Amino acid sequence: MPFEFKAVRRVEFSETDMAGIVHFSNFFRYMETAEHGFFRSLGFSVVMNQTDPPVGWPRVNAECEYRQPLRFEDEVEIHLLVSEKKSKSLSYLIKFRKLNAPTLPEVARGTLTVVCVVKGPDGKMSAAHIPKEFADKIEVAPSELLL
Amino acid sequence: MPFEFKAVRRVEFSETDMAGIVHFSNFFRYMETAEHGFFRSLGFSVVMNQTDPPVGWPRVNAECEYRQPLRFEDEVEIHLLVSEKKSKSLSYLIKFRKLNAPTLPEVARGTLTVVCVVKGPDGKMSAAHIPKEFADKIEVAPSELLL
Amino acid sequence: MPFEFKAVRRVEFSETDMAGIVHFSNFFRYMETAEHGFFRSLGFSVVMNQTDPPVGWPRVNAECEYRQPLRFEDEVEIHLLVSEKKSKSLSYLIKFRKLNAPTLPEVARGTLTVVCVVKGPDGKMSAAHIPKEFADKIEVAPSELLL
Amino acid sequence: MPFEFKAVRRVEFSETDMAGIVHFSNFFRYMETAEHGFFRSLGFSVVMNQTDPPVGWPRVNAECEYRQPLRFEDEVEIHLLVSEKKSKSLSYLIKFRKLNAPTLPEVARGTLTVVCVVKGPDGKMSAAHIPKEFADKIEVAPSELLL
Repeated sequence: MPFEFKAVRRVEFSETDMAGIVHFSNFFRYMETAEHGFFRSLGFSVVMNQTDPPVGWPRVNAECEYRQPLRFEDEVEIHLLVSEKKSKSLSYLIKFRKLNAPTLPEVARGTLTVVCVVKGPDGKMSAAHIPKEFADKIEVAPSELLL
Repeated sequence: MPFEFKAVRRVEFSETDMAGIVHFSNFFRYMETAEHGFFRSLGFSVVMNQTDPPVGWPRVNAECEYRQPLRFEDEVEIHLLVSEKKSKSLSYLIKFRKLNAPTLPEVARGTLTVVCVVKGPDGKMSAAHIPKEFADKIEVAPSELLL
Repeated sequence: MPFEFKAVRRVEFSETDMAGIVHFSNFFRYMETAEHGFFRSLGFSVVMNQTDPPVGWPRVNAECEYRQPLRFEDEVEIHLLVSEKKSKSLSYLIKFRKLNAPTLPEVARGTLTVVCVVKGPDGKMSAAHIPKEFADKIEVAPSELLL
Repeated sequence: MPFEFKAVRRVEFSETDMAGIVHFSNFFRYMETAEHGFFRSLGFSVVMNQTDPPVGWPRVNAECEYRQPLRFEDEVEIHLLVSEKKSKSLSYLIKFRKLNAPTLPEVARGTLTVVCVVKGPDGKMSAAHIPKEFADKIEVAPSELLL
């Protein structure tokens, strides 16, 4: 069963800051790119309207550890791994590797925890069970990949 | 009747790019900041839910001419002037002045045209008359201010 | 000689706003993506350090006309065409087409004018001739493509 | 000695996403706003050129826990507290409170660890002691504020 997804993107000019490197907040956007690609690879969208009821996936925790900077036009692999699967939430480990470098260094590493929610008639969101048709498609990555 | 609004903001680090200056796309965000402040100054929000029907304000045209760069921690005055008022749309002229400089140079100048829309039952937006209670509160700026 | 470049991108969640559509400022980031891809396709980077002297390309004018909204996960073709080539500046016409739609509608159209600059010893930028090795590689698009 | 700083900002339209709430990556930009305000309140800039040697402050870790969403035009207090002070790095705890709500709920809480660096002649950054004139101005917040 799927437990990972790899997205590749090239650093854009607008993602750099005056220090000449990718602004640290953009790593969180990159993480999300990989998550949404993972969902699409399974036939779903993070805007999950095809389930009954429709569900959403707000973030409850996000963390990133920065080891090396990324620069304009660097190619980055964003490797997402499912690190935890609960009845109402998912956690991911995300490893960033720089592709246009001989040693493919891991330049950063993040985690993201997202919760499955439904919207009540009053617009309020409350935690809900992950729809079975989606939950059945994913599993936690092997522990050796989560090191 | 009101025809202008001045917002002031300080350039943030995340708004700069590797050239050491504010990324050009951010001037459009700054323009919007001034527009929304203008709406609030009149007791309205750009998310106009208090009118019947509720209306929205998508942009149909945006333009900016860049004269001098803005840098981190610069203080900028964003001076919005109503330049055109039609039954279903508004246009603004926006002048950017750098405040922490002796001559208050106009560093950039933009225009924005927004159209008043209602959402149909199918979710599609269509142009609509500007709600009277809002239209009655604004007028076009004197022509000498629009030079 | 090259006069165009097509980039394709998928709309990201972080590029949408609470109106459910791509925030208008992001179209300017998309335009730049296509420009930088164009430069790379010619063996150059917009951070043009391989020329003597090194040059930069600040924007002096940017404009966008919005016809239809773009939404999350839409695939967009960003078609850049060189519309003007002067000794010290370039202008582009940029057409946005939605790919995941039967009629490939042009959802937006933009223009960008950029100027070639060198940095003086005091850090000030001044307009400069486009390096010959780059200028010799590009030409203005045929007029029928610029309609 | 100073150990905290409070910044207030109003949520901008461009900071929301199609879920109608502030995109989670923007909380990291908000944290940085408070940090830079803190530096300015002490007579310094995060672009610390007035020290010898000049130093920079890249982020090595960033984390945020999300409790309640923020929405367009919400006023947010970003309360930064120095939580750790080492010879070459600083850590902050950042509490987000919604001001236009009766109970001033803490909607999110983040941490940021930044390291003081100097740039070598080759452009590489290496960790450096925090300049004394800056280090002498700050201290760790009382532990009861760090709960």
